[in-house]
Amino acid sequence: MTSLEKLGYAKDKKLLIIHADDAGLSHSENRATIHSLKNGFVNSYSIMVPCPWFYEMALFAKEYPQIDNGIHLTLTCEWENYKFGPVLPVSEVPSLVDENGHFFKKRELLRKNANPEEVEKELRAQIEKALKFGLRPTHIDSHMYSVGSHLDFFKIYKNLGKEFELPTLINRQLLEHVGMDSEKCIDANDFVIDQTYVGEYHYFQQGKLADFYTSVLENLVAGVNLILIHPAFDDNEMKGVTVNHPNFGSAWRQIDVDYFTNEQNKAKLKENNIELITWQTIKRVL
Amino acid sequence: MTSLEKLGYAKDKKLLIIHADDAGLSHSENRATIHSLKNGFVNSYSIMVPCPWFYEMALFAKEYPQIDNGIHLTLTCEWENYKFGPVLPVSEVPSLVDENGHFFKKRELLRKNANPEEVEKELRAQIEKALKFGLRPTHIDSHMYSVGSHLDFFKIYKNLGKEFELPTLINRQLLEHVGMDSEKCIDANDFVIDQTYVGEYHYFQQGKLADFYTSVLENLVAGVNLILIHPAFDDNEMKGVTVNHPNFGSAWRQIDVDYFTNEQNKAKLKENNIELITWQTIKRVL
Repeated sequence: MTSLEKLGYAKDKKLLIIHADDAGLSHSENRATIHSLKNGFVNSYSIMVPCPWFYEMALFAKEYPQIDNGIHLTLTCEWENYKFGPVLPVSEVPSLVDENGHFFKKRELLRKNANPEEVEKELRAQIEKALKFGLRPTHIDSHMYSVGSHLDFFKIYKNLGKEFELPTLINRQLLEHVGMDSEKCIDANDFVIDQTYVGEYHYFQQGKLADFYTSVLENLVAGVNLILIHPAFDDNEMKGVTVNHPNFGSAWRQIDVDYFTNEQNKAKLKENNIELITWQTIKRVL
Repeated sequence: MTSLEKLGYAKDKKLLIIHADDAGLSHSENRATIHSLKNGFVNSYSIMVPCPWFYEMALFAKEYPQIDNGIHLTLTCEWENYKFGPVLPVSEVPSLVDENGHFFKKRELLRKNANPEEVEKELRAQIEKALKFGLRPTHIDSHMYSVGSHLDFFKIYKNLGKEFELPTLINRQLLEHVGMDSEKCIDANDFVIDQTYVGEYHYFQQGKLADFYTSVLENLVAGVNLILIHPAFDDNEMKGVTVNHPNFGSAWRQIDVDYFTNEQNKAKLKENNIELITWQTIKRVL
């Protein structure tokens, strides 16, 4: 059964979620995410619970429960000078952190070092912290898809989705992008996002990121599709967060804001018979 | 014996530390503090260990060990949407935090709720975290002078200074400002800052903050003096941190940057026979 069939749609239906990752990362990310949700055609986002600006974004989520808000489960911190770590005490999850108590920069370090029991404890603690704060998350997904760095972690991730009855981002391309054999990860009864689209660095470098997004919209195929973006402003704060990291850096994130708040780009949805869908709807139907 | 005498200066000497509080609070605060140290006449600062941008500022402190850098011991978080809490697990210091695990906004809540043993554990942990990271702090002081909110806390603070052999900001006006009887807090052998100057809200409101600083410099009396400022840029990040909190808000902090990086204002030091002194020098002499 295809994902479209599971949702009760005809097989030629082009469904799309336009999803802002990394809410809570910084004030710039929060402002830009909110701007893109309110003034653009982004229709879902997820929050990083361990991050410094979680609280601000969580207040927004409580104020706007009608807008899809997921938990962006976080096990890595890729930035050079801006650091965060587990919501649990480091002494409870020592295998998840570096010598300063911060998350590892790379999935590979996580894969090599992290103990699966500690991964489960920390991910559960992030969900529970969000729930305790009064959030009603619509879905879970994973920062840098780092849950895909180890089969054990991925099983934990899927099980947490089941346990908390939260739709869970499962997608073959993301798994393969992080080096995982997707066949080992996906069961027939999993709800799978058919196609996920994320900008790649070479598009950004060549000034072609907007063209990439246009190409995605114009060539979208039938199925349940997902575009992952990272709206933030190219301001001093975000330059500081992403210093020496142009890949998903502040200039990239500004392009995401500009593209997905542009009315002409929004019109491409209609022109290409694309229907936006939310995780809330998916949750309700499933 | 006066503080000047303890330092070996003549009794008519006007010594001054121009000190930036709150480094580590935000990227804006870090950038502005570094700018004011390098391009202005601020000559000392202290870092908030529990804050999101601690790491960035700590890297600066390690790169510039010749610049005075203290630990701004932190037990309160006064901001509305930007939250932080203890470096220790909340389960170890439950009396220091609110229902979300964040520091209290007000000294008064700290005074009422905090258990002195937990205050000691947390303050010690902040110092130890800084030392473990490789910092060589020149002094300790206290965010919002909240260690002055209870006599027990103040004794802990002074004892930590002795234990770690770190000069400790002790000052009558600050104690009285936070409602403490300074006579109970200060012993004859304490090294005391004679006069501390901090802007007050009514000056800011009336556009008179710069005039206040000028008045301090022009009327400084002999002794060991301290001006406490809070440099940050009035940018989007800092507006977010200080939202609904104009007292020590982003506009105020921009004035601090502007005043203490202005050459004409710097000239007032010479004009008024003021000699800058650092905590490093005080530590060496004592």
